[in-house]
Amino acid sequence: MSGRIVIVGLGLIGGSLALALEGFEGYELVGVDVSQPTLRYASEHGVAHRLTDKAGTVIGEADVVMLALHPQGIVDFLAEHRAHFKPGALVADVCGVKSAILEAAKVLPDTVDFIGCHPMAGTEFSGIEHAFGALFRESHFILTPRPESTPEHIALLERMAAHIGCRDVYKTTPEAHDALIAYTSQVMHLIAVSVCDDPMLFDCKGFEGSSFRGCTRVAALDVGLWTQLFSLNAPALLEVLDRLLGSLTAYREALASGDMGVLAEKLAYSAARKRKMDLPGPDLLQ
Amino acid sequence: MSGRIVIVGLGLIGGSLALALEGFEGYELVGVDVSQPTLRYASEHGVAHRLTDKAGTVIGEADVVMLALHPQGIVDFLAEHRAHFKPGALVADVCGVKSAILEAAKVLPDTVDFIGCHPMAGTEFSGIEHAFGALFRESHFILTPRPESTPEHIALLERMAAHIGCRDVYKTTPEAHDALIAYTSQVMHLIAVSVCDDPMLFDCKGFEGSSFRGCTRVAALDVGLWTQLFSLNAPALLEVLDRLLGSLTAYREALASGDMGVLAEKLAYSAARKRKMDLPGPDLLQ
Repeated sequence: MSGRIVIVGLGLIGGSLALALEGFEGYELVGVDVSQPTLRYASEHGVAHRLTDKAGTVIGEADVVMLALHPQGIVDFLAEHRAHFKPGALVADVCGVKSAILEAAKVLPDTVDFIGCHPMAGTEFSGIEHAFGALFRESHFILTPRPESTPEHIALLERMAAHIGCRDVYKTTPEAHDALIAYTSQVMHLIAVSVCDDPMLFDCKGFEGSSFRGCTRVAALDVGLWTQLFSLNAPALLEVLDRLLGSLTAYREALASGDMGVLAEKLAYSAARKRKMDLPGPDLLQ
Repeated sequence: MSGRIVIVGLGLIGGSLALALEGFEGYELVGVDVSQPTLRYASEHGVAHRLTDKAGTVIGEADVVMLALHPQGIVDFLAEHRAHFKPGALVADVCGVKSAILEAAKVLPDTVDFIGCHPMAGTEFSGIEHAFGALFRESHFILTPRPESTPEHIALLERMAAHIGCRDVYKTTPEAHDALIAYTSQVMHLIAVSVCDDPMLFDCKGFEGSSFRGCTRVAALDVGLWTQLFSLNAPALLEVLDRLLGSLTAYREALASGDMGVLAEKLAYSAARKRKMDLPGPDLLQ
């Protein structure tokens, strides 16, 4: 054993993280959750080496604590347990907003190194029964260290990201992370739910292709989690959303004008940008 | 040989259709394209049994003619060749709008049975070099017959749809098709290009997850084709687009209000609709 990693919160992300970290540099993996059914499921499926519902009994002996709770849960956990972490420990979270979390981490003593993490993986499901070790494969892993974060802890997280199958690791500031994530993730979710609000939704079965399935997939979201993620990042998200409304309205005007030349020019501009971006889709063959 | 199917236009859809129809009830498959590089590629890759750049020489002997051209190309082809089809032949198209095509098909003599088709498959690529026989697997196949279409021809298209791997066949009117497709397909493409118009696009590499890749995949569209598809269906598309702008704006207001209860209520409503819709996403594991 080279040390102990405690994972707090065994939902989709925490459960998958525990499964994916199996075998990582000989660390003992300890899973924490307040839900007995979750702990029972974890026990039956070999999620982590040891399980407990009492965080206070294990985080004092943890070299690394990974917080896989909802954002407000992380904020509350840091405040409640700020004096319980082992001196020299690395504490990290894996939620989808970073400024609010880094702000909350200021309650920690100087003896604890806090680094924000965001493995960019997920599904539209939640709960440990949907967890699987391959969840993070080919995902990006974002780090938002603090100025005083140690190179050793940053390197440790980079090796963890590699072990769980992430494609690469990016380091950035919490503010830059939150602005980018508002665009690449949060507004995608607002689009998905808005599309599902259309009265035509239930009439369209049999008429949907892969673009509809791809766009709306994430609409079946975890309401509590996403209410927090959106609210904690509202200023950045509103900026992106207003830009999207502007872009859609510009297309609306081009279409309404009946001028096919104008429409073609706009489409050529956007399509060229997408080609330059050169991101493979997840489902080329569907 | 039980007859002859002529496929006019060997792009992504026509080329894939020719490959997928191989072996269908012993029909001879004849491919038509005006592009010599396309015909050369088709010849080298065994696309269709026979190839020609002269539609006029083969459609008079065709029992079935499948038009896989851009919408305006179909309209022009029907007008130019209206007197050249074999009496009793089935003529069908496979493009993404139906009202404009069915309107154009009125130039045909009564001896020809025209049925609109829309296999709901595609990729963000175009051209025969991207064609593949499995393109239609698990797709929906939509038929818009005319009142005078024969049951035999409808049944023939249903068997063709099954042969190329489609999941099911739906019959509807051109108007209903176009209204639904504006929602399930066309507005998805307008969302994708609008998202790619955001100035943050090129900064976000490394910060995108599967929702971003899924939503923007189709933005690298065929500009000429989609300019026609959008323009030929502009009234229905504008209605859907205005509803989407309304739904997005409602989310914007909920977010801007700072009232997490209101936001949570809206998200619960939309997520429940998505779950009730119960469409599997294309990429649950990414």
